[in-house]
Amino acid sequence: MKWISDSKILIVGLGLMGGSYAMGLRRLGYYVSGIDTDKETVEYALSNGIIDEGHTETDEGCVKEADAVIFALYPTAFKNWIEKYQKFLKPGAYITDVTGVKSCIVYDIQNMLREDVEFIAAHPMAGREVSGIRGCDDKIFRDANYIVVPTEKNTKEGIAWCKRLGQILGFKNISVLSPEEHDKMIGFVSQLTHCIAVALMTCSDNRHLADYTGDSFRDLTRIARINDKMWSELFDLNKDALLSEMEKFIKEFEELKSLIKNGDREGMRDKMRLSTERRGYFDKKE
Amino acid sequence: MKWISDSKILIVGLGLMGGSYAMGLRRLGYYVSGIDTDKETVEYALSNGIIDEGHTETDEGCVKEADAVIFALYPTAFKNWIEKYQKFLKPGAYITDVTGVKSCIVYDIQNMLREDVEFIAAHPMAGREVSGIRGCDDKIFRDANYIVVPTEKNTKEGIAWCKRLGQILGFKNISVLSPEEHDKMIGFVSQLTHCIAVALMTCSDNRHLADYTGDSFRDLTRIARINDKMWSELFDLNKDALLSEMEKFIKEFEELKSLIKNGDREGMRDKMRLSTERRGYFDKKE
Repeated sequence: MKWISDSKILIVGLGLMGGSYAMGLRRLGYYVSGIDTDKETVEYALSNGIIDEGHTETDEGCVKEADAVIFALYPTAFKNWIEKYQKFLKPGAYITDVTGVKSCIVYDIQNMLREDVEFIAAHPMAGREVSGIRGCDDKIFRDANYIVVPTEKNTKEGIAWCKRLGQILGFKNISVLSPEEHDKMIGFVSQLTHCIAVALMTCSDNRHLADYTGDSFRDLTRIARINDKMWSELFDLNKDALLSEMEKFIKEFEELKSLIKNGDREGMRDKMRLSTERRGYFDKKE
Repeated sequence: MKWISDSKILIVGLGLMGGSYAMGLRRLGYYVSGIDTDKETVEYALSNGIIDEGHTETDEGCVKEADAVIFALYPTAFKNWIEKYQKFLKPGAYITDVTGVKSCIVYDIQNMLREDVEFIAAHPMAGREVSGIRGCDDKIFRDANYIVVPTEKNTKEGIAWCKRLGQILGFKNISVLSPEEHDKMIGFVSQLTHCIAVALMTCSDNRHLADYTGDSFRDLTRIARINDKMWSELFDLNKDALLSEMEKFIKEFEELKSLIKNGDREGMRDKMRLSTERRGYFDKKE
């Protein structure tokens, strides 16, 4: 598939992410079809000009015509779809996904996939605190990272296609990681942070404190509004990497606690100086 | 002291907070003098119109003329100042502070203070990730909370004066808490969050991850750039309340970790639903 504007692109799953992909690609002039089991979602996407064509079931004709298919489904649903409907895929089609965990899914999909279709995994690190088609917005890609997660089975052409997809959608940084590197990274920068935000919000009944919270508390808990179905699945599927990051964090937090308990101001200041220095590297990237 | 524009206000300590108070009060038409041991700071404040009069030492005449004195010092320095220089204070003067911890300081100051001067403690919950006079900006008060922390020793008039100070500086919410309520609250909404941000930043060498961090990680670590001298003192002085909040958080975080370890998706979802619901109360206040 070349990046020519008469390409047809199918999005399977019209949630926040699938809808935002559809919106962006249609804006760029592609013919975009969409499949979602929820009738209201498909109707909304059609009547708001997010897709050109929509189906509530996996329509054989629609799949056969697609030069590329983007799966914006939960990991398990993605696997099920491939098993059941891959026979409809157009020979030579490229398929990609938006899944937030990789090792547990990339190899399985590639192993079960037809030889004449290529799956190049990707993770668009974008999102909002809302879910569903009504929240979709292709502006969320603007300042976000897009990670291509290839394996040895992928071709140079397939990887280039997948990078280009991120580029035309407007992502700021496009990078390449192995599934294992990706999962370790995501366990730290995304999953651990969500665990912290949830635990901070649930550790005590803090409703009466809403009047007193400053920016710090709001910043740390913004992501505590969380899509429970999706994130519980993502945590579960990346369990090993996430648990190891959680343990590192607990160990460090306990160490800081001991310093406070012992009134060791110099020890506290060492930690604070290190955290200030490290945060500096992230500021430079902002 | 009435809130008339020919009142003279002295700020002791021209750091970020003292400088911002000075800037705001001078803008409102008050005569503002400042004392800071750092010569460059005083010169900067004078040449940038932040204060009308400045001293690098505690000038007897300047203190004697002040109808109100605002202490923007570290807790220990505040106590030392009172001990040494309170004899200069004008009879009937109101004094207040900006200290982030209260029980450990309010009673001590009130007990050592002259009978004809009233200390009404306050905590302006505003700040920036920079320190010093060069970062000062009275806009930081705009959306912030201001807490008056009176004890039985305070008069109705003194409390009203202190509230009014917060009002004219432009704080959004003015509230009243006892020193103990204040310290428990601050242990949770401010100190615990700073501990989490620091530990997240120091728990592993994550510099190579700067390319991959999304908003979540940046939000959770913004406050990891921290004034180590000030915060180590604040943590130490509010040790009991902070340690108890840290323990609650660890317990909850460990519980979430067990759910993940056991692959208990329903358990994870329960926590996430609770955190989403609770975060909703804070959104309403935003």
